[in-house]
Amino acid sequence: MSTVKSKNVNLKECLIICNGRIYKKDLKLTGMYLKPRRATKIIACDGASDFLKTAGITPDVIIGDMDSAKPSTLNYFSKKKVLIRQIKDQNKNDLEKAFLYAISKNIQIVHLIGLTGKRLDHTLNNISILLKFHNKIKFILYEDGFTGYLVTKQYSSVCKPGTIVSLIPLPEANGVKTTGLKYPLRNEKLALGKREGALNVTTGNSFSVTLRKGMLLVLLK
Amino acid sequence: MSTVKSKNVNLKECLIICNGRIYKKDLKLTGMYLKPRRATKIIACDGASDFLKTAGITPDVIIGDMDSAKPSTLNYFSKKKVLIRQIKDQNKNDLEKAFLYAISKNIQIVHLIGLTGKRLDHTLNNISILLKFHNKIKFILYEDGFTGYLVTKQYSSVCKPGTIVSLIPLPEANGVKTTGLKYPLRNEKLALGKREGALNVTTGNSFSVTLRKGMLLVLLK
Repeated sequence: MSTVKSKNVNLKECLIICNGRIYKKDLKLTGMYLKPRRATKIIACDGASDFLKTAGITPDVIIGDMDSAKPSTLNYFSKKKVLIRQIKDQNKNDLEKAFLYAISKNIQIVHLIGLTGKRLDHTLNNISILLKFHNKIKFILYEDGFTGYLVTKQYSSVCKPGTIVSLIPLPEANGVKTTGLKYPLRNEKLALGKREGALNVTTGNSFSVTLRKGMLLVLLK
Repeated sequence: MSTVKSKNVNLKECLIICNGRIYKKDLKLTGMYLKPRRATKIIACDGASDFLKTAGITPDVIIGDMDSAKPSTLNYFSKKKVLIRQIKDQNKNDLEKAFLYAISKNIQIVHLIGLTGKRLDHTLNNISILLKFHNKIKFILYEDGFTGYLVTKQYSSVCKPGTIVSLIPLPEANGVKTTGLKYPLRNEKLALGKREGALNVTTGNSFSVTLRKGMLLVLLK
């Protein structure tokens, strides 16, 4: 996999494309169209390879059960010497298989596209996998122009005033404090089924969130 | 709201349509096209009214901030004497406002469409609202042909062999036991970020799941 510079530290990055809803704008956000690309290596989860074929993008690896990719797609990419790793394992979904592959290649940052949006069970299953792997690999999630980060201590960002900021507890976050948001949080608790932190908005050119314990999915657009 | 018979008990049912991805097949599953309809009363959350206008369906109530429905849609339904309840409250999302309205009308069963699939923050926010209201109102969730139930003790169903069954812990479920599934669970623990129970399948004409503690979202197709 390619090594790219990020904040003066050499980090290995890759792009994983799952078989949820895939937006072309997200490919742009990842830097896929930069020359050189941020992540020159691309891992497609099973049926996501159908999207890539249509989009004219060649992945480096296709990974999964191979129960959803079209045979014609697999045949097409096989001829292009794409590595096809069929792993049948009911206890792991395709995203988990892709994460394990990335970890085996010493990847430190994963850009994730198509994680959500098609089927609710797939979406929630993938969210569970993110929680499982969050301390093994760093990821950035892209969804319809939103970028997402799983945060356990603090996150801050420079961004335009009026940026949408959703703070989603997974499943809970204690001692949440924010700066730069229209609806500030001051040492508060968020928890699924109790209190959500979605649909906030930045007032200035930056915002920050810290938490004492737990986990937040921070989504920005 | 209408009163309908269900298992020989008179239960008041309604249909809530949220502004996520809306599938026409789900409207059929709810019995919307039955005569008489199961739920003759329909509550649209804000921008979901745009879908209903296009589909030629008139809701009884449109509820929410009214920041996403097109003005032309609100004008169209206003002329049809549809009740438009604009409630501006940053601490409640549109689904929560619709639930509170339904509860105020003594509704006992809510059919839910369009809850998920567009934006991840909306999807997870709505899931949180389901958890918050699960002991106040009974609901059935519809998503692209799947039906979903929030289960705290037991659930069983007669269904075709090969039916997909996903058991999603929210956020965890202890002592989970199943019958009739290809990958049986025997007094096991499921938890987001640890172990998922998605993508199981029925082997015979029925299946059941019980749990000792916690919560499962059971999704079937």
